[in-house]
Amino acid sequence: MQLQRIDHVGYAVEDLEAAIAYHADLYGMSVVHRETSHAEGVREALLAIGESYVQLLEPLTDTSPVARFMRRNGGPGVHHVGYGVADVAATLAELKGRNVRVVDDHPRPGSRGCTIAFVHPKAAMGVLIELVEDPSLTEHRPRSRSLHSGT
Amino acid sequence: MQLQRIDHVGYAVEDLEAAIAYHADLYGMSVVHRETSHAEGVREALLAIGESYVQLLEPLTDTSPVARFMRRNGGPGVHHVGYGVADVAATLAELKGRNVRVVDDHPRPGSRGCTIAFVHPKAAMGVLIELVEDPSLTEHRPRSRSLHSGT
Repeated sequence: MQLQRIDHVGYAVEDLEAAIAYHADLYGMSVVHRETSHAEGVREALLAIGESYVQLLEPLTDTSPVARFMRRNGGPGVHHVGYGVADVAATLAELKGRNVRVVDDHPRPGSRGCTIAFVHPKAAMGVLIELVEDPSLTEHRPRSRSLHSGT
Repeated sequence: MQLQRIDHVGYAVEDLEAAIAYHADLYGMSVVHRETSHAEGVREALLAIGESYVQLLEPLTDTSPVARFMRRNGGPGVHHVGYGVADVAATLAELKGRNVRVVDDHPRPGSRGCTIAFVHPKAAMGVLIELVEDPSLTEHRPRSRSLHSGT
């Protein structure tokens, strides 16, 4: 199994619009996608950077996993790291077959039409890992620029 | 100013060799560089992933910043995120000119021959940000594969 790229780093933020303005203003990063997920309890924005994204996550409620993370963490910070894989189902099956503790027993829909699954941080040296299969990509092809209209 | 790519994500780990074995074994990631920095108080390994690296950091001493991070964090985890920039000195001057709090007032040598500077997490929504100028890269050119002998 081979990880293809850092798909994204996910930052927990208190104020999505302030975080977007910070990244646009200081770092010249543009929003290429926005989404609200009631399942995840977040409003998110994706900012393009190279073949990756910065994902900004604002909790919708105090009980959202991202809100709980911020309480544990003492504030905003890096919530998770997303790795791009060709086939989430196959990757997840391989990890489970090797007794790696996972959060998701089955692949599920993620943002921007991706299929995702989380690996448990206790199985990944304290890092919450998201496996991301992006249907707009095929193996070894650079990320489609179509999402990157702002860059 | 424009960030070019996620240069790396830096993980604080307790046991570098175990962390390398974990990433090689489960994720097929290869070590492309090793270095010990007494200035930073770490032994590190870089693993190739797409245009980025995973950087594994094991503290050399209990007083290393990475050791202190693990005590604050309650264990291993994401220590920092490195962004690739074309010119660290210019980027740092621009941030300082806008009163962004930085860790390093001047660019300094980093690992693998790069020039680096850290931005303070209090100025970056809780994320310790490293700016990385990689002399083996020029803007918009893919990372040289010469380092990636293992892939």
